[in-house]
Amino acid sequence: MPISLGDLATSVGCELIGDPDVTVSDVKSLQNATAESLTFLSNSAYKKQLPSTKAAVVVLRAEDAEDCPVAAFLSDDPYATYARMATLVCPEPGFEAGVHATATVASSATIAASACIAASVVIGERSSIGENTYVGPGSVIGNDCTVGSNCRFIANVTLVKRVAIGDRGSFHPGVVIGADGFGNAMTTEGWVKVPQLGGVRIGDDVEIGANTTVDCGAIGDTVLANGVRIDNLCMIAHNVEVGEHTAMAGFTGIAGSTIIGKRCLFAGKTGAVGHISVCDDVVVAAKTFLSKDVTVPGTYAASFPADNARSWAKQLARFRRLGTLFDRVKKLEK
Amino acid sequence: MPISLGDLATSVGCELIGDPDVTVSDVKSLQNATAESLTFLSNSAYKKQLPSTKAAVVVLRAEDAEDCPVAAFLSDDPYATYARMATLVCPEPGFEAGVHATATVASSATIAASACIAASVVIGERSSIGENTYVGPGSVIGNDCTVGSNCRFIANVTLVKRVAIGDRGSFHPGVVIGADGFGNAMTTEGWVKVPQLGGVRIGDDVEIGANTTVDCGAIGDTVLANGVRIDNLCMIAHNVEVGEHTAMAGFTGIAGSTIIGKRCLFAGKTGAVGHISVCDDVVVAAKTFLSKDVTVPGTYAASFPADNARSWAKQLARFRRLGTLFDRVKKLEK
Amino acid sequence: MPISLGDLATSVGCELIGDPDVTVSDVKSLQNATAESLTFLSNSAYKKQLPSTKAAVVVLRAEDAEDCPVAAFLSDDPYATYARMATLVCPEPGFEAGVHATATVASSATIAASACIAASVVIGERSSIGENTYVGPGSVIGNDCTVGSNCRFIANVTLVKRVAIGDRGSFHPGVVIGADGFGNAMTTEGWVKVPQLGGVRIGDDVEIGANTTVDCGAIGDTVLANGVRIDNLCMIAHNVEVGEHTAMAGFTGIAGSTIIGKRCLFAGKTGAVGHISVCDDVVVAAKTFLSKDVTVPGTYAASFPADNARSWAKQLARFRRLGTLFDRVKKLEK
Repeated sequence: MPISLGDLATSVGCELIGDPDVTVSDVKSLQNATAESLTFLSNSAYKKQLPSTKAAVVVLRAEDAEDCPVAAFLSDDPYATYARMATLVCPEPGFEAGVHATATVASSATIAASACIAASVVIGERSSIGENTYVGPGSVIGNDCTVGSNCRFIANVTLVKRVAIGDRGSFHPGVVIGADGFGNAMTTEGWVKVPQLGGVRIGDDVEIGANTTVDCGAIGDTVLANGVRIDNLCMIAHNVEVGEHTAMAGFTGIAGSTIIGKRCLFAGKTGAVGHISVCDDVVVAAKTFLSKDVTVPGTYAASFPADNARSWAKQLARFRRLGTLFDRVKKLEK
Repeated sequence: MPISLGDLATSVGCELIGDPDVTVSDVKSLQNATAESLTFLSNSAYKKQLPSTKAAVVVLRAEDAEDCPVAAFLSDDPYATYARMATLVCPEPGFEAGVHATATVASSATIAASACIAASVVIGERSSIGENTYVGPGSVIGNDCTVGSNCRFIANVTLVKRVAIGDRGSFHPGVVIGADGFGNAMTTEGWVKVPQLGGVRIGDDVEIGANTTVDCGAIGDTVLANGVRIDNLCMIAHNVEVGEHTAMAGFTGIAGSTIIGKRCLFAGKTGAVGHISVCDDVVVAAKTFLSKDVTVPGTYAASFPADNARSWAKQLARFRRLGTLFDRVKKLEK
Repeated sequence: MPISLGDLATSVGCELIGDPDVTVSDVKSLQNATAESLTFLSNSAYKKQLPSTKAAVVVLRAEDAEDCPVAAFLSDDPYATYARMATLVCPEPGFEAGVHATATVASSATIAASACIAASVVIGERSSIGENTYVGPGSVIGNDCTVGSNCRFIANVTLVKRVAIGDRGSFHPGVVIGADGFGNAMTTEGWVKVPQLGGVRIGDDVEIGANTTVDCGAIGDTVLANGVRIDNLCMIAHNVEVGEHTAMAGFTGIAGSTIIGKRCLFAGKTGAVGHISVCDDVVVAAKTFLSKDVTVPGTYAASFPADNARSWAKQLARFRRLGTLFDRVKKLEK
């Protein structure tokens, strides 16, 4: 919806260089922006596109303002400022409160008056859905779940059982929370299932990406603290605890009972074995796997970048002959 | 539900040291247990919590009994004994038999009288559901599927077509069984799809975790034998066969036509290429990938533990100069 | 359905050695084929099964014909020819056009007369479904989606919003297209969500495997070109572009804004970091991760095959002592 630059500056709290009465109604990249567009410059690799932008206004750092041919919002953190403004320019679509005729809600469940329970949703016994929460089509909320206010379950999300979620969470399609953890005891007659009797506790402002799974605890709960962000196709096993504002990119897997600190960043295809502790402020580089406690903040890595296949085959052959190389050096030293 | 220690000892068959008339009604960890709780001591790392436990009873090994301040069940395998007892103390909730009003069942399908077909379920042509099987909300059972008795499809599970499942299976939300395998033939006009015409055969006592996929065979079937346990987000490709009691942890991927033996253990993020055979009793360490036949039982590994990023960068640089190192040693030898 | 060898030869355009009036009605492997079966020989590893096959007819290369005890179709590419014939012998089951009574279709949506909207499907505002397209049970098509003709959404597929799909696409259960990308800006108060305002554009003849996710663009669209084939449990992040006829096997992950060329092949468990370009005709070997631009066609690799765990532990120890080895060689050289 059209919003004036003046209103944007006031709402987000930053300096505007330009006419406050001009309005914007969409967001575009620097390159594709039009006279209706808000855009931003954060990554310096794109600075060369600034002089020719056709945007109405650009969010940028003060030092880039002189090269800006149009209006500018000055910000020390243009990406975050852009994010906040974009939410105002392109707000999420609303929804109508109420329970759809094709939804099935257990008689012991409690649905807030301003919540929306969409088509084909199923809500189980003793569960509650808070004010202004949207439960999208095809979602299943099992028994004994508690969902706060202003949450979004986009579509086809499953909360299995004993899941407690705070306010303002976002859960994308295919997310499964509270399924049984992988607990099996080997016996002479094969595996015996270990009952998974705990729940899942999720704080406020948590977002979980499509097809990610968060298992219930075996005994006690699996916990995601406030502000945790998890990408698509990740797995949080039973009794894991993830600290505030930690973020995990696609295919991250955290094995059972591991404790992850606050503000950690897991890049794509990373993970951690079970039963370890990872301190606050740890960064895990892509494809790296933590195999023991991490007690020192910092960046951890263990992956090999792709090589030409022929050259890699030679490297592998050398790697395999490392033992003989040590022997040859030892012989030379004698 | 409250159950007496005497009844538990009799049901599971182990020795009780303590009053058989005391009852328990929940399970907790050693540390959090109360006078109503069953708990256990299996991993010796937790032995220091034993003297102060407030549990009603602890399942433990005979040699730990003297340090136990409360009643004890003696077992050579406390974890498995605990698992069996926990199932009695906290039984799975029951369900009401019948087909929900919002479910859609094809006229040629057969539903056993004691089965439950929950809300928004869809069941296809010529499929059958056995006695006491629960098909949870949002699940889709396609055409020509046969499901045995006492199975649980928790919610939003999909059986696509030609899937046969034995008794007592558990299938968690987002599981997809019988989708087309990845069969494509490259031609000058692009990919031609190879029709995937086989099915999936799954034995008794199989459990499959959330969002795992098991594809149908291209010609012939994909097979999971009795007692197989698969964690979340795994992939079993077309025409794979997995032997009895083999277990696979999260993100395990087995490529097409590979045959896996009995009692194998795949740790997290492991896998195997297509068209190989893996013998019985193989253990694959985390992040390890089998790239050829395995004919000798034992443990296989190939991953690098995480390192401080700066130190890893130096290691990578050394690794890349391995070729020059071999040259330098050769020169020294001359 | 029974089809004569003569009709098959004519339809696909290849030479038949044998009686054109014989009919086949199923497809089987060389080993399991019966007098009703079409089969094929492509991989020479199976040539030893040719002399004893009981098939009605075998698709094979001309040079293998003399060892064939039954009728033969001659083809330079037996696998592709088999694929085309198998589609005729075992055609996909049909479906009845119309909207199921349990489906929910928004009043502003457009459904072609020959399309099928199955049970428990939900279709959102302003979306359109083309002729002869099948939307299987439990699928959710969100707002502002455009689907072409002859597509198949098998079951429980989710298109979130602003997804445009061409003709003849196949989308397997659990696929999620158009969910928000992982865009977050760190601030002193925690993560701020960056609104994900773009869409997804998918060409003709695209197939996407079970539980794979394709996120919408942040600004602008995520794009899959004509003929792209993606296996199960893959992730295509926001603003990725994938070129024509590129194929990706299970667990492939492409991070945000990366551009992938035409006819690339990604093996299982591969991936690419964000913001890079990969040229046409690149092959990525299993478990390999592209971490920078690729400008030269060819095969890239970076993985270590599994080793006996004890031998691997020794290798790891040697690897860690590489620095000392360089030092020792340097000392010897002095």
